Amino acid sequence: MNKGRLYGLGVGPGDPDLITLKALRYLQAAPVVAYYIGRDKRGNALTSVQPHLRPDQIRLPLVYPVTGRKPEPPYDYEGAMRAFYDEAAEQVAAHLEAGRDVAAICEGDPFFYGSFMYLHDRLADRFETEVVPGVCSVVASASVLRTPLVYRDQRLQVLAGTLPEETLIERLSGVEAAAIMKLGSNFEKVRRVIFKLGLETRARYVERATMEGERTLPLAEIAPESVPYFSMILIPGERWQG
Amino acid sequence: MNKGRLYGLGVGPGDPDLITLKALRYLQAAPVVAYYIGRDKRGNALTSVQPHLRPDQIRLPLVYPVTGRKPEPPYDYEGAMRAFYDEAAEQVAAHLEAGRDVAAICEGDPFFYGSFMYLHDRLADRFETEVVPGVCSVVASASVLRTPLVYRDQRLQVLAGTLPEETLIERLSGVEAAAIMKLGSNFEKVRRVIFKLGLETRARYVERATMEGERTLPLAEIAPESVPYFSMILIPGERWQG
Repeated sequence: MNKGRLYGLGVGPGDPDLITLKALRYLQAAPVVAYYIGRDKRGNALTSVQPHLRPDQIRLPLVYPVTGRKPEPPYDYEGAMRAFYDEAAEQVAAHLEAGRDVAAICEGDPFFYGSFMYLHDRLADRFETEVVPGVCSVVASASVLRTPLVYRDQRLQVLAGTLPEETLIERLSGVEAAAIMKLGSNFEKVRRVIFKLGLETRARYVERATMEGERTLPLAEIAPESVPYFSMILIPGERWQG
Repeated sequence: MNKGRLYGLGVGPGDPDLITLKALRYLQAAPVVAYYIGRDKRGNALTSVQPHLRPDQIRLPLVYPVTGRKPEPPYDYEGAMRAFYDEAAEQVAAHLEAGRDVAAICEGDPFFYGSFMYLHDRLADRFETEVVPGVCSVVASASVLRTPLVYRDQRLQVLAGTLPEETLIERLSGVEAAAIMKLGSNFEKVRRVIFKLGLETRARYVERATMEGERTLPLAEIAPESVPYFSMILIPGERWQG
Protein backbone atom coordinates (compact mmCIF):
# COMPACT_ATOMS: atom_id res chain seq x y z
CA MET A 1 0.00 0.00 0.00
CA ASN A 2 1.20 3.51 -0.78
CA LYS A 3 1.79 5.90 2.06
CA GLY A 4 -0.13 9.16 2.15
CA ARG A 5 1.42 12.52 1.26
CA LEU A 6 1.86 15.36 3.71
CA TYR A 7 0.78 18.79 2.48
CA GLY A 8 1.71 21.97 4.31
CA LEU A 9 -0.79 24.48 3.01
CA GLY A 10 -0.42 28.19 3.57
CA VAL A 11 -4.00 29.40 3.86
CA GLY A 12 -3.13 33.08 4.16
CA PRO A 13 -3.63 35.68 6.87
CA GLY A 14 -7.29 35.11 7.73
CA ASP A 15 -9.67 36.13 4.96
CA PRO A 16 -10.92 32.85 3.42
CA ASP A 17 -10.54 34.45 -0.02
CA LEU A 18 -6.81 34.91 0.51
CA ILE A 19 -6.11 31.22 0.02
CA THR A 20 -4.44 30.34 -3.29
CA LEU A 21 -6.06 28.19 -5.97
CA LYS A 22 -3.38 25.57 -5.42
CA ALA A 23 -3.79 25.34 -1.64
CA LEU A 24 -7.56 25.18 -2.08
CA ARG A 25 -7.30 22.31 -4.55
CA TYR A 26 -5.03 20.27 -2.26
CA LEU A 27 -7.17 21.14 0.75
CA GLN A 28 -10.35 19.90 -0.86
CA ALA A 29 -8.74 16.72 -2.18
CA ALA A 30 -7.27 15.62 1.16
CA PRO A 31 -9.15 13.05 3.23
CA VAL A 32 -7.59 14.42 6.45
CA VAL A 33 -7.27 18.07 7.48
CA ALA A 34 -4.88 18.74 10.39
CA TYR A 35 -4.56 22.02 12.28
CA TYR A 36 -3.01 23.41 15.42
CA ILE A 37 -5.47 24.89 17.85
CA GLY A 38 -5.50 26.30 21.37
CA ARG A 39 -7.64 24.68 24.02
CA ASP A 40 -11.15 26.15 23.81
CA LYS A 41 -10.17 28.32 20.86
CA ARG A 42 -11.70 28.48 17.42
CA GLY A 43 -8.38 28.22 15.60
CA ASN A 44 -7.55 30.90 13.06
CA ALA A 45 -6.39 28.58 10.31
CA LEU A 46 -9.49 26.45 10.72
CA THR A 47 -11.77 29.48 10.74
CA SER A 48 -10.30 30.77 7.50
CA VAL A 49 -10.71 27.49 5.61
CA GLN A 50 -14.08 26.53 7.12
CA PRO A 51 -16.07 27.73 4.09
CA HIS A 52 -13.96 25.48 1.87
CA LEU A 53 -14.20 22.17 3.80
CA ARG A 54 -16.39 19.20 3.02
CA PRO A 55 -18.31 17.46 5.81
CA ASP A 56 -16.75 14.08 4.94
CA GLN A 57 -13.17 15.19 5.61
CA ILE A 58 -11.51 13.91 8.80
CA ARG A 59 -10.58 16.80 11.14
CA LEU A 60 -7.41 16.27 13.14
CA PRO A 61 -6.97 19.02 15.75
CA LEU A 62 -3.49 19.26 17.28
CA VAL A 63 -4.21 20.89 20.62
CA TYR A 64 -1.46 23.03 22.17
CA PRO A 65 -0.71 22.15 25.80
CA VAL A 66 -0.39 25.86 26.62
CA THR A 67 -2.03 28.95 25.15
CA GLY A 68 -1.61 32.59 26.03
CA ARG A 69 1.22 33.64 28.31
CA LYS A 70 4.19 31.31 28.55
CA PRO A 71 4.25 29.65 31.97
CA GLU A 72 7.22 30.39 34.23
CA PRO A 73 9.71 27.79 35.47
CA PRO A 74 9.65 25.28 37.13
CA TYR A 75 7.16 24.45 34.35
CA ASP A 76 9.30 23.02 31.58
CA TYR A 77 7.79 24.90 28.66
CA GLU A 78 10.38 23.82 26.10
CA GLY A 79 10.09 20.19 27.13
CA ALA A 80 6.31 20.28 27.05
CA MET A 81 6.31 21.80 23.56
CA ARG A 82 8.81 19.27 22.29
CA ALA A 83 6.68 16.39 23.60
CA PHE A 84 3.61 17.98 22.07
CA TYR A 85 5.19 18.32 18.62
CA ASP A 86 6.43 14.70 18.82
CA GLU A 87 2.93 13.52 19.63
CA ALA A 88 1.35 15.73 16.93
CA ALA A 89 3.75 14.32 14.34
CA GLU A 90 2.81 10.77 15.34
CA GLN A 91 -0.89 11.53 15.02
CA VAL A 92 -0.30 12.84 11.52
CA ALA A 93 2.04 9.94 10.69
CA ALA A 94 -0.63 7.40 11.62
CA HIS A 95 -2.87 8.71 8.83
CA LEU A 96 0.02 8.87 6.35
CA GLU A 97 1.03 5.28 7.19
CA ALA A 98 -2.55 4.23 6.56
CA GLY A 99 -2.32 5.71 3.07
CA ARG A 100 -4.33 8.86 3.72
CA ASP A 101 -3.05 12.22 2.52
CA VAL A 102 -2.98 14.87 5.24
CA ALA A 103 -3.44 18.58 4.55
CA ALA A 104 -1.91 20.54 7.42
CA ILE A 105 -3.37 24.02 7.23
CA CYS A 106 -1.17 26.90 8.28
CA GLU A 107 -2.00 30.53 8.97
CA GLY A 108 0.00 32.71 6.62
CA ASP A 109 2.84 30.69 5.18
CA PRO A 110 3.96 27.26 6.46
CA PHE A 111 7.70 28.06 6.59
CA PHE A 112 7.41 31.61 7.94
CA TYR A 113 7.37 31.26 11.75
CA GLY A 114 4.78 28.48 11.42
CA SER A 115 4.27 25.51 13.73
CA PHE A 116 4.03 23.37 10.60
CA MET A 117 7.83 23.51 10.53
CA TYR A 118 7.91 21.15 13.53
CA LEU A 119 5.85 18.59 11.65
CA HIS A 120 8.04 19.05 8.60
CA ASP A 121 11.23 18.62 10.64
CA ARG A 122 9.91 15.31 11.99
CA LEU A 123 8.15 13.85 8.96
CA ALA A 124 9.72 15.11 5.71
CA ASP A 125 12.32 12.32 5.75
CA ARG A 126 9.68 9.63 6.22
CA PHE A 127 6.88 10.78 3.90
CA GLU A 128 6.49 12.58 0.61
CA THR A 129 5.88 16.19 1.50
CA GLU A 130 4.78 19.24 -0.44
CA VAL A 131 4.53 22.78 0.82
CA VAL A 132 2.31 25.40 -0.79
CA PRO A 133 3.39 28.93 0.12
CA GLY A 134 0.82 31.40 1.40
CA VAL A 135 0.20 35.10 1.84
CA CYS A 136 2.04 35.98 5.05
CA SER A 137 0.81 38.39 7.69
CA VAL A 138 3.54 40.95 6.98
CA VAL A 139 2.36 41.78 3.47
CA ALA A 140 -1.29 41.37 4.46
CA SER A 141 -0.77 44.00 7.17
CA ALA A 142 0.81 46.38 4.68
CA SER A 143 -2.21 46.05 2.39
CA VAL A 144 -4.65 46.67 5.23
CA LEU A 145 -2.62 49.70 6.35
CA ARG A 146 -2.46 50.87 2.73
CA THR A 147 1.22 51.48 3.00
CA PRO A 148 3.99 50.35 0.63
CA LEU A 149 6.44 48.41 2.78
CA VAL A 150 9.89 48.36 1.14
CA TYR A 151 11.39 50.21 -1.81
CA ARG A 152 14.37 49.30 -3.97
CA ASP A 153 17.41 48.29 -1.91
CA GLN A 154 15.92 48.99 1.52
CA ARG A 155 16.47 46.30 4.14
CA LEU A 156 13.35 44.77 5.65
CA GLN A 157 13.75 43.31 9.10
CA VAL A 158 11.16 40.97 10.53
CA LEU A 159 11.38 40.94 14.30
CA ALA A 160 9.55 39.20 17.11
CA GLY A 161 8.11 41.36 19.87
CA THR A 162 9.26 38.69 22.31
CA LEU A 163 12.87 39.89 22.00
CA PRO A 164 14.45 41.70 24.98
CA GLU A 165 14.09 45.48 25.02
CA GLU A 166 17.82 46.11 24.46
CA THR A 167 17.85 43.82 21.43
CA LEU A 168 14.86 45.61 19.95
CA ILE A 169 16.52 48.98 20.52
CA GLU A 170 19.70 47.81 18.84
CA ARG A 171 17.93 46.32 15.80
CA LEU A 172 15.56 49.22 15.29
CA SER A 173 18.17 51.96 15.57
CA GLY A 174 18.43 53.57 12.16
CA VAL A 175 15.94 51.06 10.77
CA GLU A 176 15.04 51.24 7.09
CA ALA A 177 11.90 49.08 7.22
CA ALA A 178 10.61 46.60 9.77
CA ALA A 179 7.73 44.39 10.74
CA ILE A 180 7.35 43.55 14.41
CA MET A 181 5.25 40.46 14.98
CA LYS A 182 4.11 38.51 18.03
CA LEU A 183 3.03 41.53 20.02
CA GLY A 184 0.34 40.46 22.49
CA SER A 185 1.76 40.90 25.99
CA ASN A 186 4.95 42.36 24.49
CA PHE A 187 3.18 45.40 23.11
CA GLU A 188 4.01 47.88 25.86
CA LYS A 189 7.73 47.09 25.66
CA VAL A 190 7.74 47.42 21.88
CA ARG A 191 5.85 50.73 21.97
CA ARG A 192 8.30 52.08 24.53
CA VAL A 193 11.21 51.18 22.22
CA ILE A 194 9.50 52.87 19.28
CA PHE A 195 8.96 56.11 21.19
CA LYS A 196 12.48 55.96 22.62
CA LEU A 197 13.90 55.78 19.08
CA GLY A 198 11.59 58.51 17.75
CA LEU A 199 9.94 56.10 15.30
CA GLU A 200 6.37 56.81 16.45
CA THR A 201 5.44 58.94 13.46
CA ARG A 202 6.50 56.18 11.07
CA ALA A 203 5.10 53.17 12.94
CA ARG A 204 1.69 51.79 11.99
CA TYR A 205 -0.36 49.28 13.98
CA VAL A 206 -2.89 46.69 12.86
CA GLU A 207 -4.52 43.78 14.62
CA ARG A 208 -6.16 40.70 13.09
CA ALA A 209 -5.35 41.91 9.57
CA THR A 210 -7.94 40.56 7.07
CA MET A 211 -9.68 38.57 9.85
CA GLU A 212 -12.96 39.25 11.56
CA GLY A 213 -12.33 42.01 14.10
CA GLU A 214 -9.56 43.67 12.05
CA ARG A 215 -8.61 47.01 13.56
CA THR A 216 -6.07 49.74 12.90
CA LEU A 217 -5.29 52.35 15.55
CA PRO A 218 -2.78 55.13 16.23
CA LEU A 219 0.02 53.74 18.38
CA ALA A 220 -0.57 56.18 21.22
CA GLU A 221 -4.23 55.19 21.61
CA ILE A 222 -3.83 51.45 22.08
CA ALA A 223 -4.68 49.85 25.43
CA PRO A 224 -1.84 47.32 25.89
CA GLU A 225 -4.06 44.74 27.58
CA SER A 226 -6.29 44.69 24.48
CA VAL A 227 -3.51 43.70 22.07
CA PRO A 228 -3.95 40.21 20.61
CA TYR A 229 -1.14 37.90 19.50
CA PHE A 230 -2.24 38.45 15.90
CA SER A 231 -1.18 42.06 15.72
CA MET A 232 1.70 43.80 14.06
CA ILE A 233 3.61 47.04 13.92
CA LEU A 234 5.02 48.04 10.57
CA ILE A 235 7.70 50.63 10.00
CA PRO A 236 7.47 51.18 6.26
CA GLY A 237 10.49 52.18 4.25
CA GLU A 238 10.83 55.81 3.21
CA ARG A 239 9.01 56.53 -0.02
CA TRP A 240 11.25 56.65 -3.06
CA GLN A 241 10.31 59.64 -5.17
CA GLY A 242 10.63 57.56 -8.33
CA MET B 1 -20.09 59.54 -13.70
CA ASN B 2 -18.26 57.48 -11.10
CA LYS B 3 -14.52 57.13 -11.37
CA GLY B 4 -13.02 53.68 -11.70
CA ARG B 5 -11.25 51.91 -8.85
CA LEU B 6 -7.60 51.01 -8.86
CA TYR B 7 -6.74 47.47 -7.77
CA GLY B 8 -3.20 46.40 -6.95
CA LEU B 9 -3.34 42.64 -7.22
CA GLY B 10 -0.59 40.40 -5.91
CA VAL B 11 -0.61 37.48 -8.34
CA GLY B 12 2.07 35.49 -6.54
CA PRO B 13 5.53 34.30 -7.50
CA GLY B 14 4.84 32.82 -10.94
CA ASP B 15 2.75 29.65 -10.82
CA PRO B 16 -0.73 30.70 -12.08
CA ASP B 17 -2.24 28.56 -9.31
CA LEU B 18 -0.58 30.66 -6.63
CA ILE B 19 -2.97 33.55 -7.15
CA THR B 20 -5.53 34.01 -4.37
CA LEU B 21 -9.27 33.62 -4.86
CA LYS B 22 -9.70 37.30 -4.09
CA ALA B 23 -7.13 38.56 -6.59
CA LEU B 24 -8.56 36.25 -9.24
CA ARG B 25 -12.08 37.58 -8.67
CA TYR B 26 -10.98 41.21 -8.98
CA LEU B 27 -8.77 40.38 -11.94
CA GLN B 28 -11.58 38.78 -13.89
CA ALA B 29 -14.05 41.54 -13.07
CA ALA B 30 -11.81 44.41 -14.22
CA PRO B 31 -12.29 45.85 -17.70
CA VAL B 32 -8.64 46.96 -17.81
CA VAL B 33 -5.58 44.92 -16.85
CA ALA B 34 -2.34 46.90 -16.43
CA TYR B 35 1.14 45.44 -16.06
CA TYR B 36 4.75 46.49 -16.15
CA ILE B 37 6.81 44.83 -18.82
CA GLY B 38 10.30 45.04 -20.29
CA ARG B 39 10.75 45.86 -23.97
CA ASP B 40 10.52 42.62 -25.95
CA LYS B 41 9.87 40.60 -22.78
CA ARG B 42 6.96 38.36 -21.98
CA GLY B 43 6.34 39.88 -18.56
CA ASN B 44 6.26 37.57 -15.58
CA ALA B 45 3.11 38.94 -14.01
CA LEU B 46 1.29 38.76 -17.34
CA THR B 47 2.51 35.21 -17.98
CA SER B 48 1.27 34.02 -14.63
CA VAL B 49 -2.25 35.45 -15.04
CA GLN B 50 -2.60 34.65 -18.75
CA PRO B 51 -4.69 31.51 -18.15
CA HIS B 52 -7.15 33.60 -16.12
CA LEU B 53 -7.74 36.51 -18.54
CA ARG B 54 -10.72 37.03 -20.82
CA PRO B 55 -10.19 38.12 -24.44
CA ASP B 56 -12.45 41.14 -23.97
CA GLN B 57 -10.31 42.76 -21.27
CA ILE B 58 -8.23 45.79 -22.26
CA ARG B 59 -4.48 45.12 -21.84
CA LEU B 60 -2.45 48.12 -20.72
CA PRO B 61 1.30 47.37 -20.87
CA LEU B 62 3.52 49.84 -19.02
CA VAL B 63 6.82 49.43 -20.83
CA TYR B 64 10.02 50.11 -18.87
CA PRO B 65 12.43 52.49 -20.64
CA VAL B 66 15.34 50.31 -19.51
CA THR B 67 15.68 46.60 -18.82
CA GLY B 68 18.65 44.56 -17.72
CA ARG B 69 21.75 46.33 -16.49
CA LYS B 70 21.33 49.86 -15.19
CA PRO B 71 22.90 52.31 -17.67
CA GLU B 72 25.84 54.36 -16.43
CA PRO B 73 25.88 58.16 -16.17
CA PRO B 74 25.60 60.51 -18.01
CA TYR B 75 22.34 58.62 -18.66
CA ASP B 76 19.97 59.95 -15.99
CA TYR B 77 18.50 56.65 -14.86
CA GLU B 78 16.63 58.05 -11.87
CA GLY B 79 15.15 60.84 -13.93
CA ALA B 80 14.12 58.47 -16.71
CA MET B 81 12.42 56.15 -14.24
CA ARG B 82 10.61 59.03 -12.56
CA ALA B 83 9.29 60.24 -15.90
CA PHE B 84 8.26 56.72 -16.81
CA TYR B 85 6.30 56.21 -13.58
CA ASP B 86 4.62 59.61 -14.04
CA GLU B 87 3.57 58.63 -17.54
CA ALA B 88 2.45 55.14 -16.46
CA ALA B 89 0.30 56.67 -13.72
CA GLU B 90 -1.34 59.00 -16.24
CA GLN B 91 -2.12 56.11 -18.58
CA VAL B 92 -3.81 54.29 -15.71
CA ALA B 93 -5.54 57.47 -14.53
CA ALA B 94 -7.09 58.00 -17.96
CA HIS B 95 -9.01 54.73 -17.63
CA LEU B 96 -10.00 55.49 -14.04
CA GLU B 97 -11.25 58.96 -15.02
CA ALA B 98 -13.31 57.32 -17.75
CA GLY B 99 -14.99 55.16 -15.10
CA ARG B 100 -13.15 51.92 -15.85
CA ASP B 101 -11.69 49.87 -13.01
CA VAL B 102 -8.04 49.00 -13.52
CA ALA B 103 -6.45 45.81 -12.16
CA ALA B 104 -2.69 46.35 -11.90
CA ILE B 105 -1.13 42.92 -11.67
CA CYS B 106 1.98 42.55 -9.55
CA GLU B 107 4.45 39.70 -9.26
CA GLY B 108 4.53 38.50 -5.68
CA ASP B 109 3.02 41.16 -3.47
CA PRO B 110 2.20 44.74 -4.56
CA PHE B 111 3.79 46.46 -1.53
CA PHE B 112 6.86 44.23 -1.24
CA TYR B 113 9.51 45.83 -3.50
CA GLY B 114 6.89 46.13 -6.26
CA SER B 115 6.69 48.76 -8.99
CA PHE B 116 2.99 49.04 -8.19
CA MET B 117 4.05 51.21 -5.26
CA TYR B 118 4.90 54.00 -7.69
CA LEU B 119 1.39 53.92 -9.12
CA HIS B 120 -0.03 53.84 -5.61
CA ASP B 121 2.11 56.78 -4.50
CA ARG B 122 0.78 58.83 -7.42
CA LEU B 123 -2.86 57.74 -7.58
CA ALA B 124 -4.12 56.62 -4.15
CA ASP B 125 -5.07 60.19 -3.22
CA ARG B 126 -7.05 60.70 -6.42
CA PHE B 127 -8.86 57.37 -6.83
CA GLU B 128 -10.35 54.66 -4.66
CA THR B 129 -7.67 52.03 -4.32
CA GLU B 130 -7.60 48.51 -2.98
CA VAL B 131 -4.59 46.27 -2.60
CA VAL B 132 -4.80 42.49 -2.44
CA PRO B 133 -1.72 40.94 -0.88
CA GLY B 134 0.04 38.09 -2.63
CA VAL B 135 2.44 35.23 -2.03
CA CYS B 136 5.87 36.84 -2.12
CA SER B 137 8.99 35.32 -3.64
CA VAL B 138 10.72 34.89 -0.28
CA VAL B 139 8.26 32.33 1.07
CA ALA B 140 7.78 30.78 -2.38
CA SER B 141 11.53 30.18 -2.56
CA ALA B 142 11.52 28.54 0.88
CA SER B 143 8.78 26.16 -0.25
CA VAL B 144 10.64 25.25 -3.44
CA LEU B 145 13.84 24.71 -1.46
CA ARG B 146 11.86 22.66 1.09
CA THR B 147 13.43 24.56 3.93
CA PRO B 148 11.73 26.18 6.92
CA LEU B 149 12.81 29.81 6.88
CA VAL B 150 12.50 31.33 10.37
CA TYR B 151 11.79 29.87 13.79
CA ARG B 152 10.43 31.54 16.91
CA ASP B 153 12.19 34.82 17.68
CA GLN B 154 14.78 34.67 14.91
CA ARG B 155 15.27 37.84 12.91
CA LEU B 156 14.65 37.60 9.19
CA GLN B 157 16.48 40.12 7.05
CA VAL B 158 15.45 40.73 3.48
CA LEU B 159 18.33 42.24 1.54
CA ALA B 160 18.90 43.37 -2.03
CA GLY B 161 21.89 41.94 -3.85
CA THR B 162 22.42 45.42 -5.30
CA LEU B 163 23.89 46.62 -1.98
CA PRO B 164 27.64 47.34 -1.80
CA GLU B 165 29.85 44.44 -0.74
CA GLU B 166 30.81 46.03 2.59
CA THR B 167 27.16 46.61 3.48
CA LEU B 168 26.31 42.99 2.69
CA ILE B 169 29.22 41.79 4.83
CA GLU B 170 28.12 43.93 7.73
CA ARG B 171 24.46 42.86 7.57
CA LEU B 172 25.18 39.17 7.08
CA SER B 173 27.75 38.88 9.87
CA GLY B 174 26.22 36.67 12.53
CA VAL B 175 22.99 36.48 10.54
CA GLU B 176 20.08 34.50 11.97
CA ALA B 177 18.05 34.19 8.76
CA ALA B 178 18.12 36.10 5.49
CA ALA B 179 16.73 36.29 2.00
CA ILE B 180 18.90 37.98 -0.61
CA MET B 181 16.90 39.13 -3.62
CA LYS B 182 17.72 40.91 -6.86
CA LEU B 183 20.74 38.82 -7.70
CA GLY B 184 21.23 38.83 -11.49
CA SER B 185 24.49 40.62 -12.21
CA ASN B 186 25.11 40.97 -8.45
CA PHE B 187 25.41 37.25 -7.93
CA GLU B 188 29.19 36.95 -7.94
CA LYS B 189 29.58 39.67 -5.32
CA VAL B 190 26.94 38.09 -3.09
CA ARG B 191 28.49 34.64 -3.38
CA ARG B 192 31.89 36.07 -2.47
CA VAL B 193 30.39 37.62 0.67
CA ILE B 194 28.75 34.34 1.62
CA PHE B 195 31.98 32.38 1.32
CA LYS B 196 33.91 35.10 3.12
CA LEU B 197 31.53 34.82 6.07
CA GLY B 198 31.56 31.01 6.06
CA LEU B 199 27.82 30.87 5.31
CA GLU B 200 28.14 28.63 2.24
CA THR B 201 26.93 25.48 3.95
CA ARG B 202 23.75 27.25 5.10
CA ALA B 203 22.97 29.23 1.94
CA ARG B 204 20.50 27.82 -0.60
CA TYR B 205 19.94 29.10 -4.14
CA VAL B 206 16.86 29.02 -6.35
CA GLU B 207 15.98 30.76 -9.59
CA ARG B 208 12.54 31.38 -11.08
CA ALA B 209 10.85 29.78 -8.07
CA THR B 210 7.46 28.30 -9.11
CA MET B 211 7.88 29.66 -12.67
CA GLU B 212 8.69 27.79 -15.84
CA GLY B 213 12.42 27.11 -15.80
CA GLU B 214 12.63 26.87 -12.00
CA ARG B 215 16.03 25.58 -10.92
CA THR B 216 17.88 24.94 -7.66
CA LEU B 217 21.64 24.47 -7.62
CA PRO B 218 24.50 24.26 -5.12
CA LEU B 219 26.04 27.69 -4.70
CA ALA B 220 29.50 26.60 -5.86
CA GLU B 221 28.19 25.26 -9.18
CA ILE B 222 26.42 28.34 -10.47
CA ALA B 223 27.72 30.16 -13.54
CA PRO B 224 27.34 33.84 -12.58
CA GLU B 225 26.43 34.95 -16.09
CA SER B 226 23.47 32.54 -16.07
CA VAL B 227 21.82 34.05 -12.99
CA PRO B 228 18.51 35.78 -13.76
CA TYR B 229 17.04 38.71 -11.84
CA PHE B 230 14.37 36.39 -10.46
CA SER B 231 16.69 34.37 -8.29
CA MET B 232 17.27 34.27 -4.58
CA ILE B 233 19.61 33.05 -1.92
CA LEU B 234 18.08 32.00 1.37
CA ILE B 235 19.94 31.56 4.61
CA PRO B 236 17.39 29.69 6.71
CA GLY B 237 17.30 30.07 10.46
CA GLU B 238 18.78 27.34 12.57
CA ARG B 239 16.30 24.57 13.26
CA TRP B 240 14.70 24.73 16.67
CA GLN B 241 14.65 21.30 18.22
CA GLY B 242 11.11 21.86 19.50
